[in-house]
Amino acid sequence: MATLSDIALAAAINILSAFIFFVAFAILRLQPFNDRVYFPKWYLKGLRTDPVHGGTLMRKFVNLDWKSYVRFLNWMPAAIRMPELELIDHAGLDSVVYLRIYLIGLKIFVPIAFLAWAVLVPVNWTSDGLANSKLKNLTSSDIDRISISNVQSGSQRFWAHIVIAYAFTFLTCFVLLKEYEKVAAMRLHFLASEKRRADQFTVLVRNIPPDPDESVGELVEHFFLVNHPDTYLTHQVVYNANTLAKLVKKKKKLQNWLVYYQNKLERTSQRPEIKTGFLGLCGAKVDAIDHHNAEIDRLSKEIALERDKVTNDPKSTMPAAFVSFKSRWGAAVCAQTQQTRNPTSWLTEWAPEPRDVYWSNLAIPYVSLTIRRLIMAVAFFFLTFFFMIPIAFVQTLASLDGIRKSAPWLEPIISVPFIKSFIQGFLPGIALKLFLIFLPTILMIMAKFEGFGSISSLERRAAARYYIFNFVNIFLGNLLTGTAFQQLDTFLHQSANEYPITIGTAIPLKASFFISYIMVDGWAGIAAEVLMLKPLIIYHLKNFFLVKTEKDREEAMDAGSIGFNTGEPRIQLYFLLGLVYAPVTPTVLPFIIVFFGLAYVVFRHQIINVYNQEYESGAAFWPDVHVRIVIALIISQIVLMGLLTTKKAAQSTPFLIALPILTIWFHRYCKGRFESAFVKYPLQACLNCFHG
Amino acid sequence: MATLSDIALAAAINILSAFIFFVAFAILRLQPFNDRVYFPKWYLKGLRTDPVHGGTLMRKFVNLDWKSYVRFLNWMPAAIRMPELELIDHAGLDSVVYLRIYLIGLKIFVPIAFLAWAVLVPVNWTSDGLANSKLKNLTSSDIDRISISNVQSGSQRFWAHIVIAYAFTFLTCFVLLKEYEKVAAMRLHFLASEKRRADQFTVLVRNIPPDPDESVGELVEHFFLVNHPDTYLTHQVVYNANTLAKLVKKKKKLQNWLVYYQNKLERTSQRPEIKTGFLGLCGAKVDAIDHHNAEIDRLSKEIALERDKVTNDPKSTMPAAFVSFKSRWGAAVCAQTQQTRNPTSWLTEWAPEPRDVYWSNLAIPYVSLTIRRLIMAVAFFFLTFFFMIPIAFVQTLASLDGIRKSAPWLEPIISVPFIKSFIQGFLPGIALKLFLIFLPTILMIMAKFEGFGSISSLERRAAARYYIFNFVNIFLGNLLTGTAFQQLDTFLHQSANEYPITIGTAIPLKASFFISYIMVDGWAGIAAEVLMLKPLIIYHLKNFFLVKTEKDREEAMDAGSIGFNTGEPRIQLYFLLGLVYAPVTPTVLPFIIVFFGLAYVVFRHQIINVYNQEYESGAAFWPDVHVRIVIALIISQIVLMGLLTTKKAAQSTPFLIALPILTIWFHRYCKGRFESAFVKYPLQACLNCFHG
Repeated sequence: MATLSDIALAAAINILSAFIFFVAFAILRLQPFNDRVYFPKWYLKGLRTDPVHGGTLMRKFVNLDWKSYVRFLNWMPAAIRMPELELIDHAGLDSVVYLRIYLIGLKIFVPIAFLAWAVLVPVNWTSDGLANSKLKNLTSSDIDRISISNVQSGSQRFWAHIVIAYAFTFLTCFVLLKEYEKVAAMRLHFLASEKRRADQFTVLVRNIPPDPDESVGELVEHFFLVNHPDTYLTHQVVYNANTLAKLVKKKKKLQNWLVYYQNKLERTSQRPEIKTGFLGLCGAKVDAIDHHNAEIDRLSKEIALERDKVTNDPKSTMPAAFVSFKSRWGAAVCAQTQQTRNPTSWLTEWAPEPRDVYWSNLAIPYVSLTIRRLIMAVAFFFLTFFFMIPIAFVQTLASLDGIRKSAPWLEPIISVPFIKSFIQGFLPGIALKLFLIFLPTILMIMAKFEGFGSISSLERRAAARYYIFNFVNIFLGNLLTGTAFQQLDTFLHQSANEYPITIGTAIPLKASFFISYIMVDGWAGIAAEVLMLKPLIIYHLKNFFLVKTEKDREEAMDAGSIGFNTGEPRIQLYFLLGLVYAPVTPTVLPFIIVFFGLAYVVFRHQIINVYNQEYESGAAFWPDVHVRIVIALIISQIVLMGLLTTKKAAQSTPFLIALPILTIWFHRYCKGRFESAFVKYPLQACLNCFHG
Repeated sequence: MATLSDIALAAAINILSAFIFFVAFAILRLQPFNDRVYFPKWYLKGLRTDPVHGGTLMRKFVNLDWKSYVRFLNWMPAAIRMPELELIDHAGLDSVVYLRIYLIGLKIFVPIAFLAWAVLVPVNWTSDGLANSKLKNLTSSDIDRISISNVQSGSQRFWAHIVIAYAFTFLTCFVLLKEYEKVAAMRLHFLASEKRRADQFTVLVRNIPPDPDESVGELVEHFFLVNHPDTYLTHQVVYNANTLAKLVKKKKKLQNWLVYYQNKLERTSQRPEIKTGFLGLCGAKVDAIDHHNAEIDRLSKEIALERDKVTNDPKSTMPAAFVSFKSRWGAAVCAQTQQTRNPTSWLTEWAPEPRDVYWSNLAIPYVSLTIRRLIMAVAFFFLTFFFMIPIAFVQTLASLDGIRKSAPWLEPIISVPFIKSFIQGFLPGIALKLFLIFLPTILMIMAKFEGFGSISSLERRAAARYYIFNFVNIFLGNLLTGTAFQQLDTFLHQSANEYPITIGTAIPLKASFFISYIMVDGWAGIAAEVLMLKPLIIYHLKNFFLVKTEKDREEAMDAGSIGFNTGEPRIQLYFLLGLVYAPVTPTVLPFIIVFFGLAYVVFRHQIINVYNQEYESGAAFWPDVHVRIVIALIISQIVLMGLLTTKKAAQSTPFLIALPILTIWFHRYCKGRFESAFVKYPLQACLNCFHG
């Protein structure tokens, strides 16, 4: 195990790199030519315009006001200052509730850290388990002395850890309960107090059964006139408009070019000419503006034709429709009730926000859906446990021997010392790195294949899978030896009561590893997030090579979004680490608290200034967040049980058994108490606020 | 393992006892004085009257028509002859669907038996695994020769068992799918085609929050006038009327005595007198009729007073109400939607049938409910795994040594040889027997404590627990050695992949035990059911000692009911045995088929002639039945995998892994496709059939 000074060194390095990121960020964000990278949210809201207009050329690009550099961290208090209600207006409820996850981290781990350092550290420190075992030739460090490893086997001091475990559980559950209450209230208030929005009067109907005599539109109209005669207003059938969308996109592009050439004409007073052939490189020369005008006219006609075709051709209607009602009450009734005897047709649900709809999945029939879920469940199992197999294969190919074998003619090149060391040191790792970078995308594609109808549910599904993957491959993968598949095999060959022992034994040994993981991934990673290096580079590249018009510049901005599917599982890993290590190695806790605090400030800043939310689900993801923290809590309890078993605390360990049972019960209680607020929409709220 | 002749002998004994039961039944049911025991259903429906009126005294009691004795089994075709639709009218949907469980047994196991005997038996028979192992001094019987034990380890013949396992799974799933479809259709048709019944327009509202300004009644009225203004009709608050019920019962008893004395007066023309003191043994003599008239008058007044008090005293109203709507549509909307923002208040559900309501549970608040469930979950765990501990304790007490120790003064009595052998042979077993007899009652009490609001849901809950108890203590308990707790301990200390091996190894060895279990519990037990010995004895005892009036005689009839909470888990055990043994020891299958056939006829007869259904839930139990058969199927697949692993069929075993995955997927498909028909009530059905 690492000594205190090792960890101090690693901390220093990571703090330094975080500091460098922050300084770089402070300098870059003040430069006017980076304005659109660091404040896109305000541009998108129309509240900020380019600072480029006016002033000298120099001042257009570089900020020369030295005072603004001095207060280089003043974005932090600015990020925290905006009150929550204003932030909901500014960035939506999803973002605000997402920030609360970090707040929960602080609310849980600050008191836990106090308790742990006040009670457990003295208990561990004054023990002499390690001093005794030193006789057996084991070395230990200061960190070990304040961890549970220092308590002698069979000692009565473990009672302290058990009592503290109860305190941790009650504290965590209390915070979770309060937060669930608060978020549920926020959600209901948000949904009720929003201005009349179409999707609040609208229900999405899927799996409309085919009818030989009627079109989908007529069928929907008749069905709802009969079944909801008093509240039915109108409907909108979903069309398969892929061709139309392509044409519209093409027209948009041409219009952009047209603007570009018109600008050019104004600047140069000379009518620009282009060649009509391949990429404008060959063919006859024509007047650019006239040509584009003609092309746009032609496309407009085509679009009108295609639109007619889509609306009238029964083949392009999909068996899904958005049905609008006269009142929220009517929509609530329709969304929450079963329409027909066949529960797999005429499926109704609240319509997602228009931005949130994932159109291409709306038409999948029920049987196909269940088969897709089966396939994806199996695929995800293999992805989690066997993803190392293809990567290992690529790694063999990418090794020196592999290249020599498969491509002997490369021999002269790979003998060059520099290339050789590059292949040896870098190539084998790159396959794994690439896989991990693309994993969230792979998981999103899997979720899309499963047929969820809204982007928010796609992201929730991908997040759930990413969490499991992280748990198996980062948490267990680093605790235990071997690949995930080897671990699975070991677990299958082990008795059930040995699982917690296996993990429990490994936990204290890996504390310093996870501390450095937290510093690298948590501290420096979060600090890098604020710098936005990738969007910065891409924006300037685009600006340099592609941007022709004002509109192009706007589109070159990549505001990004929170990315629930990658961000939330990452936070959950810290909850898991914190809860598992709290009673075992309290040293981990301060590092986790710093992570949560830093991440809270950084993401609050990003949400205010950068991210452009893609949709608004009204914090529908909260039940997932809640249940995963509960799972982390239960895992921590089981691991502690396993650890105490190896410590021969046979008298005291059975007192821990009640903890997981109580925690599961707590979860069931919360589920019954709050979950329906995230699935259903209460009738009272519809009536009391806006009787439409 | 038992030889064929052993089993033949056991079969002969059980067939004989079943035959004796049937003959006894045939004779007893023809005697007029038993008429009310064997045909109570018809009396309750008012379609049959006592055959005692008219004829000679002798013929009133004994049937002397010898012809009727000859055709002593003719009740069987009679039982089968009534068509299903008529049976639904006669006995309700619950009973008819309950019978379909036996039919499913036949539909699954007859083709499976054919397949198994056509394919597996030849494969096993022509192998020589046992002949080879005989060299190692093992004896085997004919049954073993046609079981999987006879196939040599590592043989390619196991492919036959794997292919057959797939065939069995697809067949079972197909039958289950068809039945689920059929039962769901039957349920919807039944609910829709019933005559207007109050509970179809009524919703049960629980957890009405207290209001300081309004009574529960006013609160309910205001709430529903606001939230369901168009459809709300009226409401009925639930009162705590225990005192009232007691008074009404007392009055009924007095009225019965009054009738008795009036009859006596008519017969004897002498005014009967009674003593007013204790049990009519002491006190002043008064005229019985006048006294009872006066008492009834007094009670009537008391009842009126109490009724007033209940209706007006806010303390006796419970926070629950039945709310009626103008249309089924209104009720469906209210039952299926969430009413307020707080999902734990104003909980609505379809009102159970009036007979089905379990009144005393209607007022339990939500938090209390979740705590009760937690307590009962823990209690049930201990009941299942540790029930042997108190019983073993009683057994020690009830042994000779135990009695000598705790009560030395009994020494002279227990030295008597007869009493000694009685204590040794009978007492130790009696504690276990008593426990098993009272187990269903204990489980019902546990379910009541958990706070379910209708008798049907109580029975479903008790059935689920009884099933788990049977699985652990009868299925696993007889397969493995040691008490349930010891097994649990063994399993905890075993690795997960050894579970199926442990069970799989034990399966073929216990085939003959389970065959005799099926014959004793299944054949003879079912035949004993039709004889109804207990109701017969109790009826005649009551008739002799207690019956005073015609009404008393009616009440002395104990029609009983199907008893879903005991009957269904018992059937499920046969499904489990059948599916587990089908690919392993096909010998078991014919015995199971005989059970299902016999039970179907017997229970059809009982439902037609005897049972008086207590409530009508519209086959709401079907999803439970379905999922348990699916579980049995999955267990059988896993056990087969374990067994083949021990047989060193390493090549072929992995091909079985897809089976449980497919089966779980099948279950999810069915759940999505049909389950909501058993929970929700589609709006279309409300409108199309009876737009109320």
